[in-house]
Amino acid sequence: MERDMEWMNKAVDQAITGLHEGGMPIGAVLVAEGKELAAGRNRLAQWDSPLRHAEIDCLENAGSLPAATYAKSTLYTTLSPCQMCAGAVVLCGIPRVVIGENRNWRSSEDFLRSEGVEVVVLDLEDCHGPMSDFIAVRPDLWTWG
Amino acid sequence: MERDMEWMNKAVDQAITGLHEGGMPIGAVLVAEGKELAAGRNRLAQWDSPLRHAEIDCLENAGSLPAATYAKSTLYTTLSPCQMCAGAVVLCGIPRVVIGENRNWRSSEDFLRSEGVEVVVLDLEDCHGPMSDFIAVRPDLWTWG
Repeated sequence: MERDMEWMNKAVDQAITGLHEGGMPIGAVLVAEGKELAAGRNRLAQWDSPLRHAEIDCLENAGSLPAATYAKSTLYTTLSPCQMCAGAVVLCGIPRVVIGENRNWRSSEDFLRSEGVEVVVLDLEDCHGPMSDFIAVRPDLWTWG
Repeated sequence: MERDMEWMNKAVDQAITGLHEGGMPIGAVLVAEGKELAAGRNRLAQWDSPLRHAEIDCLENAGSLPAATYAKSTLYTTLSPCQMCAGAVVLCGIPRVVIGENRNWRSSEDFLRSEGVEVVVLDLEDCHGPMSDFIAVRPDLWTWG
């Protein structure tokens, strides 16, 4: 749990970096055996991308890893993953997802569990607050066109 | 149906281009109101990417489109979409997916239907054959690490 908080703080750092870039404050970090493999953040606004969510950005930044590495990994994400990102977790064979908050979005935690993925929700104000503020100020970006 | 075949042939062209690049023969095309918005192909091998499936490539190539455009669109893909790509379809609000074949892979057609997406399976040998051959020759790329 203490380690989970440490890694989640790195995901929060990514979220805040995204906010400063004019993007959505959502970050993610991929970790295996106590080491950070990659970090990423939502870049929909920054890159005019429809799909570059934080988890996708993080997994793409990690590049293609051996199945054995994914099998030991945990994906930290500040916001509960959408259906696409949950599918990416299953596709990669990541066995554990730690979520910062799921009050602003929640769609796929049951799906992840049904696929055998361990899902931990930390419910942190450091994740929930910036996201809530962002949705209030930029509903256009949040609802996305 | 005739138009579907025409667009699917463009997705097959993408798949064959991918094969010639050393990648998996899977292609996709996004169409709305009789016009091609974007095309894409699986680039896992070409880009050392874990997630750049044909559907993702196609949707990223289209850029971020207005919700009203997605709402009129059809995504053509030579192979039945994985959970991530099906999630991307739902995320974008694409109401119709036309699939070239689902014998080499099938995971998410029921999910798509449960989300209100129309799913059409053409079951074409032009899609199935190259994919079957590829899986037989390059199981390392297909099973992915």
